[in-house]
Amino acid sequence: MKRFINSKSDIVTEALDGFLATTPNAFLARLDAYPHTKVIVRTDWDKSRVTIISGGGSGHEPAHAGFVGQGMLTAAVCGEIFASPSVEAVLAAILAVTGDAGCLLIVKNYTGDRLNFGLAAERAKAMGYKVEMVIVADDVAIPGAHQPRGVAGTLFVHKIIGFLAEQGASLQQLAQAANELTRRIFSIGLSLDTCTVPGNQRQDYLAATEAELGLGIHGEPGVAKITFAAAASLMQTACNEIEKAIGDDHDHYALILNNLGSVPPIEMQVLAHSFLQTTLSEKVGLVIGPAHLMTSLDMNGFSISLLQLAPGDKEALFADVTVASWPGARELHGTASVSVVASPAEDRPGFEPSENKAIKATVLTVCNTLLAAAEDLNQLDALIGDGDTGTTFGNAARYIKDALEQLPYATDASLCFALSDLLARHMGGSSGALMAILFAAAGEAKEQAASWPSALMSGAQRMMFYGGAKQGDRTMLDALLPGLEALQAGSSLAEAAKAAREGADGTADMTRAKAGRAAYVPGASLNGVVDPGAEAIARAFAAAANNS
Amino acid sequence: MKRFINSKSDIVTEALDGFLATTPNAFLARLDAYPHTKVIVRTDWDKSRVTIISGGGSGHEPAHAGFVGQGMLTAAVCGEIFASPSVEAVLAAILAVTGDAGCLLIVKNYTGDRLNFGLAAERAKAMGYKVEMVIVADDVAIPGAHQPRGVAGTLFVHKIIGFLAEQGASLQQLAQAANELTRRIFSIGLSLDTCTVPGNQRQDYLAATEAELGLGIHGEPGVAKITFAAAASLMQTACNEIEKAIGDDHDHYALILNNLGSVPPIEMQVLAHSFLQTTLSEKVGLVIGPAHLMTSLDMNGFSISLLQLAPGDKEALFADVTVASWPGARELHGTASVSVVASPAEDRPGFEPSENKAIKATVLTVCNTLLAAAEDLNQLDALIGDGDTGTTFGNAARYIKDALEQLPYATDASLCFALSDLLARHMGGSSGALMAILFAAAGEAKEQAASWPSALMSGAQRMMFYGGAKQGDRTMLDALLPGLEALQAGSSLAEAAKAAREGADGTADMTRAKAGRAAYVPGASLNGVVDPGAEAIARAFAAAANNS
Repeated sequence: MKRFINSKSDIVTEALDGFLATTPNAFLARLDAYPHTKVIVRTDWDKSRVTIISGGGSGHEPAHAGFVGQGMLTAAVCGEIFASPSVEAVLAAILAVTGDAGCLLIVKNYTGDRLNFGLAAERAKAMGYKVEMVIVADDVAIPGAHQPRGVAGTLFVHKIIGFLAEQGASLQQLAQAANELTRRIFSIGLSLDTCTVPGNQRQDYLAATEAELGLGIHGEPGVAKITFAAAASLMQTACNEIEKAIGDDHDHYALILNNLGSVPPIEMQVLAHSFLQTTLSEKVGLVIGPAHLMTSLDMNGFSISLLQLAPGDKEALFADVTVASWPGARELHGTASVSVVASPAEDRPGFEPSENKAIKATVLTVCNTLLAAAEDLNQLDALIGDGDTGTTFGNAARYIKDALEQLPYATDASLCFALSDLLARHMGGSSGALMAILFAAAGEAKEQAASWPSALMSGAQRMMFYGGAKQGDRTMLDALLPGLEALQAGSSLAEAAKAAREGADGTADMTRAKAGRAAYVPGASLNGVVDPGAEAIARAFAAAANNS
Repeated sequence: MKRFINSKSDIVTEALDGFLATTPNAFLARLDAYPHTKVIVRTDWDKSRVTIISGGGSGHEPAHAGFVGQGMLTAAVCGEIFASPSVEAVLAAILAVTGDAGCLLIVKNYTGDRLNFGLAAERAKAMGYKVEMVIVADDVAIPGAHQPRGVAGTLFVHKIIGFLAEQGASLQQLAQAANELTRRIFSIGLSLDTCTVPGNQRQDYLAATEAELGLGIHGEPGVAKITFAAAASLMQTACNEIEKAIGDDHDHYALILNNLGSVPPIEMQVLAHSFLQTTLSEKVGLVIGPAHLMTSLDMNGFSISLLQLAPGDKEALFADVTVASWPGARELHGTASVSVVASPAEDRPGFEPSENKAIKATVLTVCNTLLAAAEDLNQLDALIGDGDTGTTFGNAARYIKDALEQLPYATDASLCFALSDLLARHMGGSSGALMAILFAAAGEAKEQAASWPSALMSGAQRMMFYGGAKQGDRTMLDALLPGLEALQAGSSLAEAAKAAREGADGTADMTRAKAGRAAYVPGASLNGVVDPGAEAIARAFAAAANNS
């Protein structure tokens, strides 16, 4: 299993040092007993307030170090991957940050953590410190479990108790509040795969058609293997378990939507959307996440945690913290949560048909020429590309011919904008966009009273800017630019058409295309073949010249 | 490939609605032309400032919608997965948020985006709007590439230009600053696997021994397949490419460390640590991430982007935003970035040896009894657990015997603390922690002048609290509690020993263990077997009674 680690034995210390060096909260440090004692502490802490310490095995990042900071934890005690920290480590944390106000330990319900944090608490008490411990057991996967596991709902405790501590609550008040709070938290996880413990072989014990419900955050087997299904269906399954656990008595909950490790952001957003379609969401007035809060290494799954809201909880959950891993909270108001604003009317100027017979005739003859050239152009393109240049230019020509009687020939700028519009709507492909850009920019120049050669050159320059190609790149520019340059220099249309033809023919000798689809074609295949876009432009110039 | 999606066709709109409903920034909305036009806009925007619009294909979440908000983007235009948004969508965005100050489009260098944003810009200009466009082409994967791709370095442009726009810079100033800025950004990606486009089969075109350098954010093939290696080695490889691109002229850079999709947080932290070990890191004074910024669906990879810092950049990068997906910035100071504080000395009270012959004799006889019982206890445990209860209690007994002459027998509390310490250090396992807790809590009670029975009962209660077991759970408590209750009721040690023995024997009839390792053993296997922990306690009571 390919993973981004160095050695299994250093993964936790490397991750913690990587975190400490890069987290925007610069008021964090580690105790010097590293690596045996992996304790992350606030350095902006004054001991007049009650200390909040949490921790446990690693592999749950950003928990727990990521939640140390003003308004949440005072310190985090980190064990090796999925292993409780030692009594000595917990004791070191308590001694480092605890003053007269005392210390509350927030511990997830695992035997190792309970005992190691518990014994450290007793030792600290023997040394004269005031210490209390609260155990979080929010997992509802196994109904009536004797010892439910502590999972992502622990974040509610970190945030709310952290807030109260910051407000100056006493140790007794905090311990009581935390004990009461933990009884109102309900979590369940669902994953498409288990996690990979560094150094272990990955165990693919779920089939491609299976997902797992109610698994632990250490890859413990779940309560049921279920059939893999759409996100909405899997989310509903998870919600069903929560609904069984919370009953019908209350309808004001907060949600944590937790990424268990490797679900990409777009899928977490889809899961958030799926949650909002459930009936359970009607009871949820506040959401935290989707975010990585309590992960299980690279587990491809999510968990939802619900907190039955009591007075004061909202304020605590919304309160600002200096903790970068805390994603913030958002109030939900049913479907109205997604505001919709009116899209502006597309009040482009309408075009009043008007007359200029010479220009109209030129437009018509160019269109007819391109329609007639369609098969030739497709054949050229088939040699070096996907064989549709003729179809693309032909489409454009047909739609312009269809609109021939509606165009504003008497006003050059309007005509340019109208042609740009038609090309954008109907020509398709990159060349459609490029031609539309050419005429839009030419129209702008015309509004500034530019001559036709200058206006079209201005369009060609915008085309180059947006398209990224230039002369010599084996594109339609190789015919267009010589033709326009000739016109700008005062040459006749016939002379310009000759320059465009020479430019087009010259592309046959260019064995390297730098833009367009031909850029992916080997030079030998290009040799002797005129670029079909340049060919189209040369024929258009010739048609215009013949008409003049 | 199992992924959390519903339908391929709805993934982008569902993800955007999921994002809009849950992001802590409530001042966002979508245009009503959804789903054809997927535009996310600020609702707290006043048009006196220049509008900053970005966007492109989806699948890069949180980009681009996740960066809309005060101090960054005014709007994001989102296409389908990896597909440019339409001209109409970009135009709708421009019209929705642009006022007299004009609009700057920030576009990653892909032909589709350039043309669609470009044409929309030209149309908006034709309608009288002031529009400029800047193209970001930060990918250094292909040296001397004609058209380098735009990747995660785009975030530098969003943040710095967003800041300047918020400060009131003019459109011309912003366009000039953005064009100058893009020339100072250098990015490269490295992945262990390509991404899975929803609805497509996953293509495992990298072997288990391969990684890929310089791949695009749409799963475009990279510039080289490289050998999979440790995180530090892969990071060095990526840094080498950046060093080639940036040259030696400057030494003040900012870093973006970007998660390309599915790298779990602990591994991104390891990668951050690995980056800090490179020589390139010596030129980096400011870091953003690790975080999801510009992802490629579920790609298991990372990218690094360096910005050559110019005056004003730092202020812009550090400025507060209301954008939850922006991870904040952190100043780096070489290795000193990780602060280390001294671990508090473990100033536990030392124990002065002192005498109390009766108690010392009791300690000795209990130790001898447990040593003698080791084999019996192991055999009992082998029937229902892992066969080490005798060894565990025996170890504890041996270490206490070794310390027999150093213990403070004359002071009950000190004796309890000393025993707790010895048990914590040497007994091991859950029972070691539990016994250590019992004596630590008993010591505390003794300091409050409790009697021995009350002090030990107090210890048993703490043991229950931390351990989570209670009487009847088939643990040592089933002998301990009856024995201590008898003592508390004024019974003799002999009577207490009898009660402990009856309690221990009673565990043989308990066919369900609720705590400890036996909790995982079927009831039939437990039937008739005395719990070895309870047996140990009963023998200890008997030994103490015989000695008295």
